[in-house]
Amino acid sequence: MHITGQMLIGKKAVFGLAGNIKATDPSTNQEIEPVFGYATSTEVEQACGLAEQAFDTYRNTTLEQRARFLEAIAAGILDLGPALIERAAQETGLPVARLEGERGRTVNQLRLFAKVVRDGHWLAATIDAALPDRAPSRPDLRLQKIALGPVAVFGASNFPLAFSVAGGDTASALAAGCPVVVKAHNAHLGTSELVGRVIQRAVADYNLPEGVFSMLIGAGSQVGQQLVSHPAIKAVGFTGSRTGGLALVHTASQRKEPIPVYAEMSSINPVFLLEHALVTQGEQLARNFIDSLTLGAGQFCTNPGLVIAIESEASQAFLHQAAQALEDKHASTMLTPGIHQAYVKGSSRLADIAGLRLAGKGQAAGSPCAAQAMLSVCSGSTFLNTPALQEEIFGPSSIAILCKDFTEVLQVAASLEGQLTATVHATSEDHAQARKLLPVLERKAGRILFNGFPTGVEVAHAMVHGGPFPATSDSRTTSVGATAIERFLRPVCYQGIPAALLPTALQDDNPWQVTRMIDGKLTPA
Amino acid sequence: MHITGQMLIGKKAVFGLAGNIKATDPSTNQEIEPVFGYATSTEVEQACGLAEQAFDTYRNTTLEQRARFLEAIAAGILDLGPALIERAAQETGLPVARLEGERGRTVNQLRLFAKVVRDGHWLAATIDAALPDRAPSRPDLRLQKIALGPVAVFGASNFPLAFSVAGGDTASALAAGCPVVVKAHNAHLGTSELVGRVIQRAVADYNLPEGVFSMLIGAGSQVGQQLVSHPAIKAVGFTGSRTGGLALVHTASQRKEPIPVYAEMSSINPVFLLEHALVTQGEQLARNFIDSLTLGAGQFCTNPGLVIAIESEASQAFLHQAAQALEDKHASTMLTPGIHQAYVKGSSRLADIAGLRLAGKGQAAGSPCAAQAMLSVCSGSTFLNTPALQEEIFGPSSIAILCKDFTEVLQVAASLEGQLTATVHATSEDHAQARKLLPVLERKAGRILFNGFPTGVEVAHAMVHGGPFPATSDSRTTSVGATAIERFLRPVCYQGIPAALLPTALQDDNPWQVTRMIDGKLTPA
Repeated sequence: MHITGQMLIGKKAVFGLAGNIKATDPSTNQEIEPVFGYATSTEVEQACGLAEQAFDTYRNTTLEQRARFLEAIAAGILDLGPALIERAAQETGLPVARLEGERGRTVNQLRLFAKVVRDGHWLAATIDAALPDRAPSRPDLRLQKIALGPVAVFGASNFPLAFSVAGGDTASALAAGCPVVVKAHNAHLGTSELVGRVIQRAVADYNLPEGVFSMLIGAGSQVGQQLVSHPAIKAVGFTGSRTGGLALVHTASQRKEPIPVYAEMSSINPVFLLEHALVTQGEQLARNFIDSLTLGAGQFCTNPGLVIAIESEASQAFLHQAAQALEDKHASTMLTPGIHQAYVKGSSRLADIAGLRLAGKGQAAGSPCAAQAMLSVCSGSTFLNTPALQEEIFGPSSIAILCKDFTEVLQVAASLEGQLTATVHATSEDHAQARKLLPVLERKAGRILFNGFPTGVEVAHAMVHGGPFPATSDSRTTSVGATAIERFLRPVCYQGIPAALLPTALQDDNPWQVTRMIDGKLTPA
Repeated sequence: MHITGQMLIGKKAVFGLAGNIKATDPSTNQEIEPVFGYATSTEVEQACGLAEQAFDTYRNTTLEQRARFLEAIAAGILDLGPALIERAAQETGLPVARLEGERGRTVNQLRLFAKVVRDGHWLAATIDAALPDRAPSRPDLRLQKIALGPVAVFGASNFPLAFSVAGGDTASALAAGCPVVVKAHNAHLGTSELVGRVIQRAVADYNLPEGVFSMLIGAGSQVGQQLVSHPAIKAVGFTGSRTGGLALVHTASQRKEPIPVYAEMSSINPVFLLEHALVTQGEQLARNFIDSLTLGAGQFCTNPGLVIAIESEASQAFLHQAAQALEDKHASTMLTPGIHQAYVKGSSRLADIAGLRLAGKGQAAGSPCAAQAMLSVCSGSTFLNTPALQEEIFGPSSIAILCKDFTEVLQVAASLEGQLTATVHATSEDHAQARKLLPVLERKAGRILFNGFPTGVEVAHAMVHGGPFPATSDSRTTSVGATAIERFLRPVCYQGIPAALLPTALQDDNPWQVTRMIDGKLTPA
């Protein structure tokens, strides 16, 4: 498939005339052909207008139609073959193996949502039978969830496939019955066009209204803001920086009709190393920690940016071993020159913080956007007194906190802002302490894991990729996993509706064979 | 039980020293004893601090403990006997029979949430088994929902029992495991104290931490704002005016950690009368409509403030019959002098609107806060061109819109702001039109009802008392019915947690016997 630099607005491909941009190869800082055009406000308007027009038809497709549409997108992405991986590798500096893995995840994610749609549990179909003989009589009441409306999705820089044009937000919004308008991320525009055209073709192949999908190109501060301000848009999915996320939250709250924004923003993902785990597995933990820290140049939302232990022989040994493991780590190319600059700035700012010292570093950078990994160390009291240490440094930088005792460990845990993840390494000898730590971590994080590392987010039913502010703008949801569909739904009650007019999921004979809550009891089909 | 004028802060009763207020009997505009004291900022701080301290213990009570606690509150309210009803009648001007019914609803609501808690479906317990042999291996993943944190609840003026101190927001928050700090509504402070003391005693009787419940007294602009700003508070439940609701939404969004606000604010609850229904049942519809409009002096969130029909002989007859039925309606006492003044102002403003005329009115007021009911009428085009006609007039005032054809009916429907309810009267001959109207109404309202009137909100599993902005500040939820508990929960994923440390609902042997989603399948205990 040829990359043209065009946007996709409904069934059309349009070259935007509001400005120009080329993708950059971050390993060389060289521009890559072709030129992409930025959307004018008319084009944003067109995409939103088409989404609005498509909404009623699309939300009323059958479960089977919608599931097949999602599966067709998955198949289309695979059909792109090596061309997609090559373009993505060139635009992002990510290794081919990683991108192939990410493509697998993207495809599986679309297929999972196809299953979720077919299953129909998300409809929350509920029936309370009429009680005509009760005084006062009770009418027939039925509830189902319906789609919120067209959704604006912002592609993430760090997952050019799995959290971009056909990524988790798009898949879950389409699954819910919402048309999607994507703002492609400028860091991987060619990848975006290739994937966008797959969705555009699936829309046509399945005879869906063209407005089910559009993809715009432009600056977040212009096209992004206009998109979130548009009355047709009823929810927003975003993964990126805290600044970017909060700007969208602000815009959405200022609208005449405020709308929900699901922004996944920043997290430093604390890892607690309890004493017996450190004593018995310290060396292995040090190696695994450094592997997790430097994976993908540290460009994961769940990168372990904080390691907390009690000051002891074992924790000193861990620190030493981690520093040693770090020495061997090559500097990997980051996604964009901008991300690299922010990393250099953020990690070098640590040198100015009193009480913090460098514990070790990776190999020096050998190419323009390569990031030298680093591990710093400070005391519990320094951390507690330095709020700046809670700011995410996106990239392979982490801080070890050595506390004077377990009470201080609990204080550090309690002082943390909201996180996507919190990790505990513990043997059974550590369980008494773990038991004290767990309730604190439950209040801080969306996912708590034991004896592992937070990088690696499984796409499953029980996954939560979310967490209290500022990890996300809405702790009540997840952006990864089957329940991500719930973000784009709202409940509607149908009272006394004639049988002939009832939505399919609520009809007496249950044509879609979905599990329903009937008179307070979950009732399989 | 003696009414003292004190607030309830944890296990203490405290007379607030920041100001004084007495309740008013709206039927006479006379003050009622005793004097109530307003909270100082220290007292707000104390209530929030106690709630924070109580949170971990309370959220970790067993399902059975929490269910019994809710049932004890229900029993305690009944034990108050006639004293509660008498005080509420005096403070609100509502008839005794209505208040007895409301007490029944309040008690049933607490008992429903006790059932909901025991059932455990709200935990959304989910287990994805580890797949150690997959490459890469999948860890054991388990999800449950946990309580958000302490909740601020604002009592509503129009439901002194069912949406006040022990009302729907309090019941659902306590069910979710959240401590509650109530700001009592100044319109029924004695009623609030009586009910508040019941909850306070139940907290003590069940050996719960005292901070599980506090009740403060003060101005919304002071105590209310301070409460919503407090870092310990993690969500807000509110029923009241759009101005009041939006002020809380604004404050909550400006916090260092923004929190969700569930504000149920305003709705004019359109009722569509389709032609055949009008022709065959017009007279009965007219009587029922006027009964619904004037019920409780029109002081229901679901009061039918708009009636839409096609201009025809049948709709003219309906209008005439409605005007006649209205003539017989006594002016009923409204809840407070302030609400009555707002009604007089709002309904008299209608006289200035070009194209709108008075169609009929109820009997003139005979006491200070009594509201004269009124029905106005205008054309479809007047409505479409006059946004002010969408503003709620809280009380027994409604506007009939006579459209030139069904296309204009659809235009009126599409022009509506978000609503709590939308009603359609239709016979089977009207179904073709109803089918066109339904998708429009689905996008406008939280509850769609046929051949009934929207006043009367059943507390059931399938109820939705919510809807798109500005009906509420969050269309994804309901404030009435079993699923109201979901407002105060967020999901947490537990990855690879040792069996000994797993939350009860996620342990392999399922000690609470809750239905769980296991490997993508709903699995009863």
